[in-house]
Amino acid sequence: MATQGDHTKPLVEIQLLPDNVTVNVPVGACIADAATAAGCALETPCGGLGVCGKCKVRIISGAGHPDKDELRLLSKDEINQGTRLACKARASGNRMVVEIPAESRSLVQQILSAGVLRHVEPRPNVLKIHARVHPPTLQDERAEYERLMLECDHSSNTTPSLDMLTDLSAKLRSSDYDVTAILMGDRLADVEPGDTTDHCYGIAYDLGSTTIVGYLVHLPTAREAGVAATMNPQMTYGDDLVSRIRFASEKPDGRTILQQAAVRALNEILARVTQKAKVSPLSVYEATVVGNTCMTHLLLGIDPSSLGVSPYVPTVCRALDVPPGEIGLRINPRGNAHIMPNVAGFVGSDLVGVLLTSMWEDDGRTRLAVDIGTNGEMALRHKGKTLACSAAAGPAFEGAGISCGMRGSPGAIDSVRMDDDVQISTIRNQKPKGVCGSGLLDAIAWMLRIGMIEETGRMAAPEDIGDVPLAIKNRILEDDGQRRFVLTWADESATGTPISITQRDVRQVQLAKGSIHAAIRTLLALSGARSEDLDEVLLAGAFGNYIRVESALRIGLIPAIPPNRIKSVGNAAGSGARLALLSLDERKRAAEIAARLEHIELANHETYQRAFEEQMLFPESEMEPTAAQK
Amino acid sequence: MATQGDHTKPLVEIQLLPDNVTVNVPVGACIADAATAAGCALETPCGGLGVCGKCKVRIISGAGHPDKDELRLLSKDEINQGTRLACKARASGNRMVVEIPAESRSLVQQILSAGVLRHVEPRPNVLKIHARVHPPTLQDERAEYERLMLECDHSSNTTPSLDMLTDLSAKLRSSDYDVTAILMGDRLADVEPGDTTDHCYGIAYDLGSTTIVGYLVHLPTAREAGVAATMNPQMTYGDDLVSRIRFASEKPDGRTILQQAAVRALNEILARVTQKAKVSPLSVYEATVVGNTCMTHLLLGIDPSSLGVSPYVPTVCRALDVPPGEIGLRINPRGNAHIMPNVAGFVGSDLVGVLLTSMWEDDGRTRLAVDIGTNGEMALRHKGKTLACSAAAGPAFEGAGISCGMRGSPGAIDSVRMDDDVQISTIRNQKPKGVCGSGLLDAIAWMLRIGMIEETGRMAAPEDIGDVPLAIKNRILEDDGQRRFVLTWADESATGTPISITQRDVRQVQLAKGSIHAAIRTLLALSGARSEDLDEVLLAGAFGNYIRVESALRIGLIPAIPPNRIKSVGNAAGSGARLALLSLDERKRAAEIAARLEHIELANHETYQRAFEEQMLFPESEMEPTAAQK
Repeated sequence: MATQGDHTKPLVEIQLLPDNVTVNVPVGACIADAATAAGCALETPCGGLGVCGKCKVRIISGAGHPDKDELRLLSKDEINQGTRLACKARASGNRMVVEIPAESRSLVQQILSAGVLRHVEPRPNVLKIHARVHPPTLQDERAEYERLMLECDHSSNTTPSLDMLTDLSAKLRSSDYDVTAILMGDRLADVEPGDTTDHCYGIAYDLGSTTIVGYLVHLPTAREAGVAATMNPQMTYGDDLVSRIRFASEKPDGRTILQQAAVRALNEILARVTQKAKVSPLSVYEATVVGNTCMTHLLLGIDPSSLGVSPYVPTVCRALDVPPGEIGLRINPRGNAHIMPNVAGFVGSDLVGVLLTSMWEDDGRTRLAVDIGTNGEMALRHKGKTLACSAAAGPAFEGAGISCGMRGSPGAIDSVRMDDDVQISTIRNQKPKGVCGSGLLDAIAWMLRIGMIEETGRMAAPEDIGDVPLAIKNRILEDDGQRRFVLTWADESATGTPISITQRDVRQVQLAKGSIHAAIRTLLALSGARSEDLDEVLLAGAFGNYIRVESALRIGLIPAIPPNRIKSVGNAAGSGARLALLSLDERKRAAEIAARLEHIELANHETYQRAFEEQMLFPESEMEPTAAQK
Repeated sequence: MATQGDHTKPLVEIQLLPDNVTVNVPVGACIADAATAAGCALETPCGGLGVCGKCKVRIISGAGHPDKDELRLLSKDEINQGTRLACKARASGNRMVVEIPAESRSLVQQILSAGVLRHVEPRPNVLKIHARVHPPTLQDERAEYERLMLECDHSSNTTPSLDMLTDLSAKLRSSDYDVTAILMGDRLADVEPGDTTDHCYGIAYDLGSTTIVGYLVHLPTAREAGVAATMNPQMTYGDDLVSRIRFASEKPDGRTILQQAAVRALNEILARVTQKAKVSPLSVYEATVVGNTCMTHLLLGIDPSSLGVSPYVPTVCRALDVPPGEIGLRINPRGNAHIMPNVAGFVGSDLVGVLLTSMWEDDGRTRLAVDIGTNGEMALRHKGKTLACSAAAGPAFEGAGISCGMRGSPGAIDSVRMDDDVQISTIRNQKPKGVCGSGLLDAIAWMLRIGMIEETGRMAAPEDIGDVPLAIKNRILEDDGQRRFVLTWADESATGTPISITQRDVRQVQLAKGSIHAAIRTLLALSGARSEDLDEVLLAGAFGNYIRVESALRIGLIPAIPPNRIKSVGNAAGSGARLALLSLDERKRAAEIAARLEHIELANHETYQRAFEEQMLFPESEMEPTAAQK
């Protein structure tokens, strides 16, 4: 991969099609990095290791010889036509023209940004105080700093930063001692002429492995001033955490590249929300960040290697306050970036944010919160104790590792019903391109209902299925001894090929749901609770928000409880970041939540292994009467 | 003056003689800056404003046309021979050869570095703890940082710096979890492999306007590991504080140039003491700094403009802790620079250091501490209250503004006695070049004793003086209606001209001593004390250490009290910096001393104006029997 800031090598001009963007990169840089640098990010699920063969590009002019991975992963025709792997092909010569095919591009996903937010009394860390300071006289020779602080009623405990002191006197004098002091906790961060108390914003970030959301908040009023989201550009260097940890640990400058990618996305969101709200980014004084432990380590440039090897310990868990410039975040440089506390290597501040939003009070009920992404992070509160764990769900629920899977972007089948035939809907009603997590769950739930999938997960032959409309039966195909179920036929699809669920896809879902459900069972067992005791189950995050509860229950993703006890709480992690932005009391509460959580390492527990085996099976029948049964 | 870091202009190579040093500077840089950059600092008493004409150099090749200041201040012959003012002449062409005559050079002064130091229990801010940390296991998954902190018995209150966290895990693992943690107060500053607890140093700086002293201290044992001193390179930009404040405020980049000059000197001292002690500068974790308010403002890059206009308020008084890198100090970058607290615009942390060393306890006695430099800073404690003030003494006691005056460097007449004739001694017994402060005081005291100077300061004619040896009488000369008294004749002097005290010199000393004595009288009056109440007078600093108490009493520099109540305390300001380095308790005490000091602005007090008029007169006779009278 390219070494960032390498000034010693000659540059190659690369023209990227169809965007027609040109970028200069050092000789030897790989095309994937060049594309990222140009803002045309590619899908590189394996993290640029030359394993998956997914990052195909066509080099129209300037193609070199394929390397051994390319020879293995590409057909002879492809190679002859200039197709190469973007993670393998390297910049050479003076100029290259490279076409990025649609299927290799990183797609913008349907992003969940609407979180629930409980009401809090604003008590932000940033305080702007308008002060008319008494100018010095021969009778009053106090230092400028002490003079200002006394006027702000913050006499003794504040500590000035040198940066701010250097020109404080000139600032006071040029504004006739009529200024607004910006206090960050106990620190005088800056002084602005006149009364600027209304120009006071913060931004709360939910730094996900896949998507990043930012909420701009007007701090004096707690009003949401804007929201924006973007894909995590680290996707270019690996879809999952393990790939990124390897990338950071093994590639030269890998850690820097990932750190810069994350902060670039945060800055892009900042630029968009502030522009739209007509607010200067310099009026944004604080950022709060939730994310999983690996994401926050990478954002801070902390070596994530220890997260990649057993026993998966992080470098730090407690909340951190960092000068924005230290990580390259372009809010007011004298402001603060508050990174919320983690719990363990795979239980991050995103789960803390979920709990802060929706399980902050111990009301005596037995409650479970589940945040499903690539990992399922969850917490169970029962009789005053809260246990938390993380289960590796695999990427099936995000549409990855599934034959026709895709993320929840336009054209994804996001809901499936069956009556006389299969009924689908797609995101933005576009022609279907594939199936995303919620559609996949629906499909499998219905296939279970009509007996097309057995308890063991085996797909039945059409002749073994009873009373099912023929149109549906006809969708069961079998080739090379593998069964598949067609959701849309070739002529209905944007891709020109049928979109179907294979036996292998069913197995992937079994593994994923088994892992999540087993983790829930383990927490229940260790808490001494039964599934019937669950008064409430909170589903957080994009997946939790979009799936149908009936489907989740039918496939046995969660224990069988009445559906009215199951609630979607939206992007509760992001809401947690907003709460911490609005109030120091909430920040303190988050620290307490993180400190009180008892982390359960599932790998240690036989209970989990046993539960996993059991939960690999699908439930025999609906557990509860649901609307879907009508 | 040269703009630092100007990369756009072509460079001129300047060869400086007699040192034969070559330096490259941008076209247009002045020769004074070029000489400073090359380490051949010049005397520029007016701060490079082209007023005093003292920074003459001879441009042997490459001289340009003189400007109007040079035409005014230099003779035609000088200009024809290539003499120019270093603050005016500018780099031009490709190459220049410049000779710096001896009289324009900045001389290394006799520097006082031996301070008294009272015993304190070491409790430094820097703590090194050797820790054998338990490696993580599946049963113990705490974060690396928490793991280490618990082992160091510093669990809850420490805050990690991001800088240190980024590679903490790798550091722990590569050293098999056998490390030394470096704690700076509550902050984990760094981690070093193995047991390095013995490699733990601090440096205490006395940052004077003229000279800078640094003391290297081994913190675990409180042992002094070395001491070094250097001239303050800011001298190049102005001898006195007012010139430097003007330079910082008016010259482009002036503040940066002075900041960098100060820190360059601190780094030079650091390099010298650590090299001599065979210690890595990275084993120096903390620096403490005392200095006058203007010096500490300039060191920190804080705009000193407000110190230059009435009512002379500083930007900040409280103690500051600054990351060393923020000011360019080359101790361990993860260490700390502690700048001690100031009291007012012209009462700085140097006086706080003096009081911390020698007046830290209130023992009920009435005590006065006086630190005389260009300003006389002093504090009087009487009946539980401590008043402090600063009196502008002018530079006479440092040998400046005196016809044959010089600093206390080799060849300076530093002591004068009279018996049958005048007896002198010089520093390092070199041939006399001029007279420094202590010699000047001796000379005037003796001239008073033999009646050669009247109470009003008028120098008497030889015929009006009574019973005095002829050899002494013959030294009184008169030319152009001005009397002078010859200390050494032309043939005895290194300069080939007589070294004498003129009527004007006597007036300068009258002004200086009048100012100091009047300030003391004002503090006494405001405290309700009389001079007889003074149980102890402490003289601090170089001047206080080298002058003879009898001479000081004879000229009336201080009130007439028994000489045995007068004590020299050496470089007590520097000792204060050492105390603060050794113990946080002392640092707290310094803050309390600074906070409790009542600053008296003399300009406000009629008492001072009246006292000044009275104290301009010399005492009529010796007030007490002294050894000098025998």
